Amino acid sequence: MAGGVATVWLHRPDRLNAFTLTMADELAAVAAAADADDDVRVVVVTGAGRAFCAGADLGGGPGTFGDRRTRARPPGPLSQDIGGFPRDAGGVASLAFAALRKPVIAAINGPAVGIGATLPLAMDIRIAGQSARFGFVFGRVGIVPEAASSWFLPRVVGISQAMEWVATGRVFDAAEALRGRLVSRVVPDAELLPTAYALAREIVANTSGVAVAAARQLLWSMLGASSPWDAHRAESRALVELGEGPDPAEGVAAFLEKRRPRFPARLDPGPVAGVPRWPAPPDDVIPGQP
Amino acid sequence: MAGGVATVWLHRPDRLNAFTLTMADELAAVAAAADADDDVRVVVVTGAGRAFCAGADLGGGPGTFGDRRTRARPPGPLSQDIGGFPRDAGGVASLAFAALRKPVIAAINGPAVGIGATLPLAMDIRIAGQSARFGFVFGRVGIVPEAASSWFLPRVVGISQAMEWVATGRVFDAAEALRGRLVSRVVPDAELLPTAYALAREIVANTSGVAVAAARQLLWSMLGASSPWDAHRAESRALVELGEGPDPAEGVAAFLEKRRPRFPARLDPGPVAGVPRWPAPPDDVIPGQP
Amino acid sequence: MAGGVATVWLHRPDRLNAFTLTMADELAAVAAAADADDDVRVVVVTGAGRAFCAGADLGGGPGTFGDRRTRARPPGPLSQDIGGFPRDAGGVASLAFAALRKPVIAAINGPAVGIGATLPLAMDIRIAGQSARFGFVFGRVGIVPEAASSWFLPRVVGISQAMEWVATGRVFDAAEALRGRLVSRVVPDAELLPTAYALAREIVANTSGVAVAAARQLLWSMLGASSPWDAHRAESRALVELGEGPDPAEGVAAFLEKRRPRFPARLDPGPVAGVPRWPAPPDDVIPGQP
Repeated sequence: MAGGVATVWLHRPDRLNAFTLTMADELAAVAAAADADDDVRVVVVTGAGRAFCAGADLGGGPGTFGDRRTRARPPGPLSQDIGGFPRDAGGVASLAFAALRKPVIAAINGPAVGIGATLPLAMDIRIAGQSARFGFVFGRVGIVPEAASSWFLPRVVGISQAMEWVATGRVFDAAEALRGRLVSRVVPDAELLPTAYALAREIVANTSGVAVAAARQLLWSMLGASSPWDAHRAESRALVELGEGPDPAEGVAAFLEKRRPRFPARLDPGPVAGVPRWPAPPDDVIPGQP
Repeated sequence: MAGGVATVWLHRPDRLNAFTLTMADELAAVAAAADADDDVRVVVVTGAGRAFCAGADLGGGPGTFGDRRTRARPPGPLSQDIGGFPRDAGGVASLAFAALRKPVIAAINGPAVGIGATLPLAMDIRIAGQSARFGFVFGRVGIVPEAASSWFLPRVVGISQAMEWVATGRVFDAAEALRGRLVSRVVPDAELLPTAYALAREIVANTSGVAVAAARQLLWSMLGASSPWDAHRAESRALVELGEGPDPAEGVAAFLEKRRPRFPARLDPGPVAGVPRWPAPPDDVIPGQP
Repeated sequence: MAGGVATVWLHRPDRLNAFTLTMADELAAVAAAADADDDVRVVVVTGAGRAFCAGADLGGGPGTFGDRRTRARPPGPLSQDIGGFPRDAGGVASLAFAALRKPVIAAINGPAVGIGATLPLAMDIRIAGQSARFGFVFGRVGIVPEAASSWFLPRVVGISQAMEWVATGRVFDAAEALRGRLVSRVVPDAELLPTAYALAREIVANTSGVAVAAARQLLWSMLGASSPWDAHRAESRALVELGEGPDPAEGVAAFLEKRRPRFPARLDPGPVAGVPRWPAPPDDVIPGQP
């Protein structure tokens, strides 16, 4: 963590950062910790070594995707069934980032396959190094896209591009990812982290942490709202709630004095007052929400 | 107003058309008037002078965004609370254009910052002159995006581009707006209004006002519908209702005779029969809807 | 049908494949048959002769869109009213493809106007030959977009592009369709079917039919879900249900052995276990759903 920016490393470099239940558990914990720490303004997620994440660890062999009912699970969210079924470990990780109130930047440094391709969909911004490779390969191993990607992917790249990648299970390069709007930028590998950090610093240096947290909650949750009148109601209240804090006065003063703002408000735990978060699931709990 | 095209000027050129409560009130009124006037087929919105709209008028100083509970408000929609809170003035203006049953073209001629960037999101088509600049700068002054933009922006440019612009509060040029799909075209400044008017004339000359009003209601309201079967039901009825009017017969006759149509139907006030409009907000009123 | 790929020809070449009630009825039947036939993995839809589909057959003259209440209709879905009104024939055809559990590729070989432009929106992937032309011309004949396109079109191309095409009723070429993301590729006419078949074969050769059917249901239905937590619940169950079948073990084994998979699971009629399909319409029936 430096200058308000926390970096999360997927870190099993000898296994191309292949995804395990332990990794799901740790990612959920680190996302919750970043949410709770007021000193963290932006989170960057990247992979150690030459891969971002090569997918589920297939060390279990052909039974990898067949024994979910009985496999031992670490205590915590992964041990809690959902709808009477064992919970997808990818979703535990991705939704912890969806629930995070800070902007999250995925810096995709190499192969991002399976859960490696779906995990970043719950993040705000995806940047790829030139050696990044992507694959929604679930159909190739007889399973469905996970990590809540059946919700995220069509919203990020459109339903037609989503269906082409999912139906073929194709592995594709960074240029195809850029054309298909899966990533917003492709940069030389050596410039990947510097680019991500420059974007993170642009956020930290210029904007109020409380205001951006409220905006993140608003924009994502309004993807699930049927009418802009819902947004009008939520924004009207949020403007009042934020206006009672110190940041708007500092922001306007800094603007009028042509200086950088120094926002005093701290981000308390829990939803920002007046701002809706994700629509609550009927029989589940969203991290950080009462 | 000429040839079925009404032009709305944001007109405080000495203040870069900075937004005030009075302007919100007047925009809501002019949108309602354009909706009610059958001679208006298309609305073009642009800025007088060198700006489109430089954002909220900060003449109130650092307290600008902090005194919404107590500030005097003009009578009319702005004076009516929503959900127990004073109503966002930006939303009063933008939603009046969302509720308009005619196509609206924003011709963005210069800086469009804050409410200047969010107001056009409720319009159908955005064209920029080369000197246009955009900024969703709300986080820089400690507040959240408004004018119902937390609903509109992710639908217009995608959630990832929306989050990048909102989290940084960056001011960006017309080329970045085009790449990010915020505008559909960038033209030399001198060609901006001619381009907007050419598009407006293409609509007026070729299509039925009643049919396009019905289509606008259908397409926007179906963004909030969960299933295409909802559209099937609404369209089935709308086709019958429109078929009982005179325009389809004239349209097919003109096509078969290879001439321009002269559609006789007039657009009565209120929703087009059989066509759903925006999902009704639970405790609010949509302009023009009973 | 060859190699798991079924081709559906719009086939009234002497009438530019103009759409009739009989054609709607036959398309619904052929989509249902493709859904039920386990040997069909992918469906390609294209037009016989030089057009894809020139729109509704206007052989009825100016009364074409005005007599829907009384026109004789073939028995079957078309004869069943919806919401008390005669059912749009375009929607009967397009929604039969939406309900199909296999990927559908539209190979658009020439003019695709009116229902010719809206029918492919319910399909997964659209590829155009260079001589393709498109037009959402409904406003030119005084009616609204149909075939559930008021739901599909804004989701495929964005609301702003949708409104420009619908409000003008413009006829546009394949290049404009590509820029507007209506099609994912434009190829020389002679390469259109080979391109579509290559994509179909990529799906057949590499992925599990049951897994792709489940994924198609998930991705499309989640467009109507308000929260990614809904996807988490559905995916968690689907992973268990699929894991109890034989395909995941074969997929992982093939991957580890670096060979092509030979998936043994067959696709039974009805929804894939554990996978939601389209949200059920309140007073209508979705083909293939109980």
